[in-house]
Amino acid sequence: MRYPLAVSQSGRLVVSCPDRPGIVAAVSDFLFRQGANIVHSDQHSTHDAPEQFFMRVEFQGPSADSLVEPFRELANRFEMQARFVPSDRHKRLAVFVSKEDHCLQELLWQVRSGDLQAEISMVVGNHRDLELSATAFGVPFFHVPVTPDTKADAEARHLELVANQVDVIVLARYMQILSPSFLAIWGGKVINIHHSFLPAFAGARPYHQAYDRGVKIIGATAHYVTAELDAGPIIEQDVHRVDHGSDPSDLRRIGRQTERAVLARAVRWHVEDRVLIRGNRTVVFD
Amino acid sequence: MRYPLAVSQSGRLVVSCPDRPGIVAAVSDFLFRQGANIVHSDQHSTHDAPEQFFMRVEFQGPSADSLVEPFRELANRFEMQARFVPSDRHKRLAVFVSKEDHCLQELLWQVRSGDLQAEISMVVGNHRDLELSATAFGVPFFHVPVTPDTKADAEARHLELVANQVDVIVLARYMQILSPSFLAIWGGKVINIHHSFLPAFAGARPYHQAYDRGVKIIGATAHYVTAELDAGPIIEQDVHRVDHGSDPSDLRRIGRQTERAVLARAVRWHVEDRVLIRGNRTVVFD
Amino acid sequence: MRYPLAVSQSGRLVVSCPDRPGIVAAVSDFLFRQGANIVHSDQHSTHDAPEQFFMRVEFQGPSADSLVEPFRELANRFEMQARFVPSDRHKRLAVFVSKEDHCLQELLWQVRSGDLQAEISMVVGNHRDLELSATAFGVPFFHVPVTPDTKADAEARHLELVANQVDVIVLARYMQILSPSFLAIWGGKVINIHHSFLPAFAGARPYHQAYDRGVKIIGATAHYVTAELDAGPIIEQDVHRVDHGSDPSDLRRIGRQTERAVLARAVRWHVEDRVLIRGNRTVVFD
Amino acid sequence: MRYPLAVSQSGRLVVSCPDRPGIVAAVSDFLFRQGANIVHSDQHSTHDAPEQFFMRVEFQGPSADSLVEPFRELANRFEMQARFVPSDRHKRLAVFVSKEDHCLQELLWQVRSGDLQAEISMVVGNHRDLELSATAFGVPFFHVPVTPDTKADAEARHLELVANQVDVIVLARYMQILSPSFLAIWGGKVINIHHSFLPAFAGARPYHQAYDRGVKIIGATAHYVTAELDAGPIIEQDVHRVDHGSDPSDLRRIGRQTERAVLARAVRWHVEDRVLIRGNRTVVFD
Repeated sequence: MRYPLAVSQSGRLVVSCPDRPGIVAAVSDFLFRQGANIVHSDQHSTHDAPEQFFMRVEFQGPSADSLVEPFRELANRFEMQARFVPSDRHKRLAVFVSKEDHCLQELLWQVRSGDLQAEISMVVGNHRDLELSATAFGVPFFHVPVTPDTKADAEARHLELVANQVDVIVLARYMQILSPSFLAIWGGKVINIHHSFLPAFAGARPYHQAYDRGVKIIGATAHYVTAELDAGPIIEQDVHRVDHGSDPSDLRRIGRQTERAVLARAVRWHVEDRVLIRGNRTVVFD
Repeated sequence: MRYPLAVSQSGRLVVSCPDRPGIVAAVSDFLFRQGANIVHSDQHSTHDAPEQFFMRVEFQGPSADSLVEPFRELANRFEMQARFVPSDRHKRLAVFVSKEDHCLQELLWQVRSGDLQAEISMVVGNHRDLELSATAFGVPFFHVPVTPDTKADAEARHLELVANQVDVIVLARYMQILSPSFLAIWGGKVINIHHSFLPAFAGARPYHQAYDRGVKIIGATAHYVTAELDAGPIIEQDVHRVDHGSDPSDLRRIGRQTERAVLARAVRWHVEDRVLIRGNRTVVFD
Repeated sequence: MRYPLAVSQSGRLVVSCPDRPGIVAAVSDFLFRQGANIVHSDQHSTHDAPEQFFMRVEFQGPSADSLVEPFRELANRFEMQARFVPSDRHKRLAVFVSKEDHCLQELLWQVRSGDLQAEISMVVGNHRDLELSATAFGVPFFHVPVTPDTKADAEARHLELVANQVDVIVLARYMQILSPSFLAIWGGKVINIHHSFLPAFAGARPYHQAYDRGVKIIGATAHYVTAELDAGPIIEQDVHRVDHGSDPSDLRRIGRQTERAVLARAVRWHVEDRVLIRGNRTVVFD
Repeated sequence: MRYPLAVSQSGRLVVSCPDRPGIVAAVSDFLFRQGANIVHSDQHSTHDAPEQFFMRVEFQGPSADSLVEPFRELANRFEMQARFVPSDRHKRLAVFVSKEDHCLQELLWQVRSGDLQAEISMVVGNHRDLELSATAFGVPFFHVPVTPDTKADAEARHLELVANQVDVIVLARYMQILSPSFLAIWGGKVINIHHSFLPAFAGARPYHQAYDRGVKIIGATAHYVTAELDAGPIIEQDVHRVDHGSDPSDLRRIGRQTERAVLARAVRWHVEDRVLIRGNRTVVFD
């Protein structure tokens, strides 16, 4: 028997626009005329006003870059936000960390194994604890201490480090809050992992909060960071069962597995252009 | 805030054909020209030869029946198997049962609650045990005993009962094997629930087999019935955790919950035209 | 091969007391001397001060009632709260309902099938919608309307109905709040199902809250009712995955399956004396 | 609020013997008299003849070693197999690998993080691919090539390497079959991860088998290795949902996450003396 091979795609088109009749016909006709064969396609229409249309297409054939110009007229006609992305152009990540390594390790492994098709360009830590974890994988590590007094300077340093160097910032158990001015620049491109099933247990020490409340399931949430703490658009969540015998240290141990799996999935979806944001919600074409 | 309403759709189009460029463009252009607005659309291309294309579209606007004739030319051009289904035409079910009631009950409830948009036209039992369960919901019950000697007569009676009366037959823990001649007529339209995680524990007494093997998870599988026992295309599966303290009667109790949930999901997907068969595999647009 | 039979037990002993050395030895020695064979045993010590010990034993041999008096000295010595329960004495339930039937149906069906070893003594509704659901199973239905003006009278009627008639009250999507005075009498014996993954989305319309927040997983929580709304000790929780395509009506449909499964498990554990309360947490020997 | 601390335990007692009245009383009385405080206790009686009793106790107080001699009389009286294990004596692991690193990585990381309380004494590979993975964590790597011609020599080398050096052998995607003579020595102490939900898809290329069968859920199974391939006592299993779009390479990627989680849990339970074998089944006190 012949098994299907992983399908080569030359590029992706990601579209969002006000919903109205004829979009799919127009886009698929455009791709057909350009010699682009649709390998996979997802679409979603929101049904609460104002109705919005989202579409993600993987295609073979012409290069993604070559389609940008020809597509312009159609994009204007439908008031589209549209991106063509070459499939072989990997997104560049900055991973921000503090002292806990499990989320960073997971990302490093998944990049090395090829499960996560991205490049980790740098690891930035407010402590030096994870420097070796980064450099062991050949990834530069930058130590940017953060104290209440130096917070503004630290952020200036962050902005300098990531500018033009990375496409997305991943907070991998980075225990610092980003300022509104930082997010004004990087909004929609910063992914955080929160170690609870949001909106339950937002804020500090969620495993202790979970223990106090006596929940039977704990979770983790990957979300885009917004100015309001732990309230940004959710990309992915998952949970794990616990019981009366689980004390806070057990919850932390169990939770670590959920955190790294959830964060890695969210980052993978982001770098494969599968996540679209609408208000405080995400559309995920997984 | 205004919440999205359940979206009215006038019909569905379900298509399968050899994969080649231009299908999506042609279909979406056709619908656009007919004034049919695409509410939801899924597609899938298999990547093992011969490549096959599958598509399911929910649309608003013209009646499904009115599109059949105009679509014919396009269907021929792409060698399509295509069906237009009016969304308000509920499929009619015959539910075949023996003595265990949990799967039948689940289907009856879900139809009554509207979760399952179908009509249960009849319940057919080889025993009378579940007659009251059916008639309590106003569903006719037919008792067709099956013994080795009367098997052929029983099947003749079955065929007579269901002919032109139902669209799909659901074996809800019906502990009898259907003959090849029966399946020659009803193939692809008979759904069975097997109380194991197939292909593990095919055949009789799967919970006892599972206990013997000492598995830590048990499951259930809904599949289309084919001539080979428990080997037809799988529609849905789910599992439940067990442990060393679970004896066969525990497995049965736990398994009942999985069986009825899995069967109900499979039937729902089938009656909403979400399941397409290709060889021994299914495409499920859920 | 011979399979294990469901094990007959004559009774259960449920104990809680301050933790200190020698409890297990004393209890197991007592049972041994009384000719009671331990069929199953669970225990748990909390490790936050004041340390508390919990134990549940299933035994064969002497009747549960016959052990109460001989056990008294030991219970006093260890400052125990202890209960002996004959295994064949089924707890009596009152199920309070409003208009939604899925949780009531699940309980009725599980009692009839024997999965839930309890007796449903009455169904009490503030609307008449589910009267037939109850009486179809031979269970008396009492209609006790509740309006802001008649709330006190309604509760008086409730207390009258359940006094000495039932052991536990189950709120099966009963959309009314019980008064502190009611709970002063029935505290620890009223189980509610909340249709969210508490503490997320406490209060009204949790599925709409979940939709607004854009969560990727929804849940349900069974808990003992206390004076503070949706804040009592959690018995069981479970979740189900949803996605961007799920509108509030989908969440309700998906959630119903989780609600009835979670409530039924919690009630089963309660009637089998598997749940012990400590402060705002539960110990569940499942 | 004060949170419970991780509880210190000085040792564990693991017992199995023919079931009969009085065992729990005798064991708990023994521990009480020796000044050992029971921190946690689990027990299980099989209910299929011959009835067997299993017990695992964590205690504080006297050293595990000091209890061995005093316990002898009781052990003889009940025909017990009993082990006292000091909690701080970590088991030593040999991890056998071929070319795939995800399971090895998970074990190395969990040991380093302290989630897995064990010592990885050596990594043994039939290829050199994972040498750096081991040595990066300071673990010795031994390259023992295996060909059909050299298989006997390779096993002799294996036996030499592990003798007196390790307590348990973990096959972390080691794609070689161990001989009966090897298992005669190491039976019950070799844990394998099979990348399917056994007994489905035993043998080679389970993900391709799973793809062929069109299953909707894939799994992984950790089990003790016996002479019959993939048929030994199951310790742990878990699953992950897939769909019609998942080709064999997707199944492999998804499956890797399940494999390493399942294997790590099984190894953790083994090194914490939580797994007892009875025939082809395991009792797991997790």
